[in-house]
Amino acid sequence: MRLLEERILKDGQVFAGNVLKVDSFLNHQLDVQLLSEIGAEFKKIYSDCDITKVLTIEASGIGVGCMVAQFFDCPLLFAKKTKTINIKGDVYTSKVESFTHKCTYDIIVSKDFLGKDDTVLIIDDFLAKGNALLGLIDIVKQSGAKLAGCGIAIEKGYQGGGDKLRAQGIRVESMAIIDEMNDETGEIVFGTR
Amino acid sequence: MRLLEERILKDGQVFAGNVLKVDSFLNHQLDVQLLSEIGAEFKKIYSDCDITKVLTIEASGIGVGCMVAQFFDCPLLFAKKTKTINIKGDVYTSKVESFTHKCTYDIIVSKDFLGKDDTVLIIDDFLAKGNALLGLIDIVKQSGAKLAGCGIAIEKGYQGGGDKLRAQGIRVESMAIIDEMNDETGEIVFGTR
Repeated sequence: MRLLEERILKDGQVFAGNVLKVDSFLNHQLDVQLLSEIGAEFKKIYSDCDITKVLTIEASGIGVGCMVAQFFDCPLLFAKKTKTINIKGDVYTSKVESFTHKCTYDIIVSKDFLGKDDTVLIIDDFLAKGNALLGLIDIVKQSGAKLAGCGIAIEKGYQGGGDKLRAQGIRVESMAIIDEMNDETGEIVFGTR
Repeated sequence: MRLLEERILKDGQVFAGNVLKVDSFLNHQLDVQLLSEIGAEFKKIYSDCDITKVLTIEASGIGVGCMVAQFFDCPLLFAKKTKTINIKGDVYTSKVESFTHKCTYDIIVSKDFLGKDDTVLIIDDFLAKGNALLGLIDIVKQSGAKLAGCGIAIEKGYQGGGDKLRAQGIRVESMAIIDEMNDETGEIVFGTR
């Protein structure tokens, strides 16, 4: 998606350790108009899939997830990262290893909101090693729902998570795929899949 | 807002300890159409305020915050609850005591995205004792921005947080205000301010 690639080139900053800072428009301050354009694009891509639920993970997936769900006229469901006292009843759980935070955490989704009659589109803002997606896919499998595929704003292609999932036959569509980043020159090279 | 009150009566569940479970449409699964109606309503209420930024707090404020920001054609900025490695540079910080999680945590907002030229609308899904709002208001003050007011989906009026803020001259508008809840009968009584 040209609009997102251009925005990354304009406002993204590359730091050592493979960190791409896009918090001016994607994961701290959110450009909701841009997210809406991304939502419209995913609607085109997955238009024939009869999506009944968009699934994401807190916190920064919620913004893009909401905008995507609007176009599918279905609810957004977000996996929570810790068990809170306000979640009652049975839940699906999975474990996710965080590349950003260097820890492992549990994600949970209430069984009330996902079941075998659902067709799910998983949405997230970032895809690096794919660990968050693996956790969400595991939860979709547990629920018996059908997985239509995944929709990602920015995929770090060079970290291989997306390609690993594609090799397993999972549909992964990304609005921008970064194949190379250089924190010394600031250069960002985009690719396609 | 009648639509939200009706939804709370239909799908909300009252539990002991003043817990109102609305996770089927507001803070786990999100009814994005309902959130969009809420956004339209806040646009009406704050239409003459020249809002430049909607500010909320992760995680469940992000959904309603996005929908509100759409109507004001401005970015959504969400305060983060812990310092992550992807936030670089100077930040505003404040402390928030959580009623739900029974702990105190730091919230942070990058100084890059909030300053004296901004007019801020603070949005959150819930208002109980008002501690999250106090933290966000503190951050707006630190930034030198103008605070237009606060917009809340569900205010637990009987917990007094909203009235305390109003007594300080802060504009607080809530789409539904609960004055009484009974976890034995399930009864919910709405009020106005």
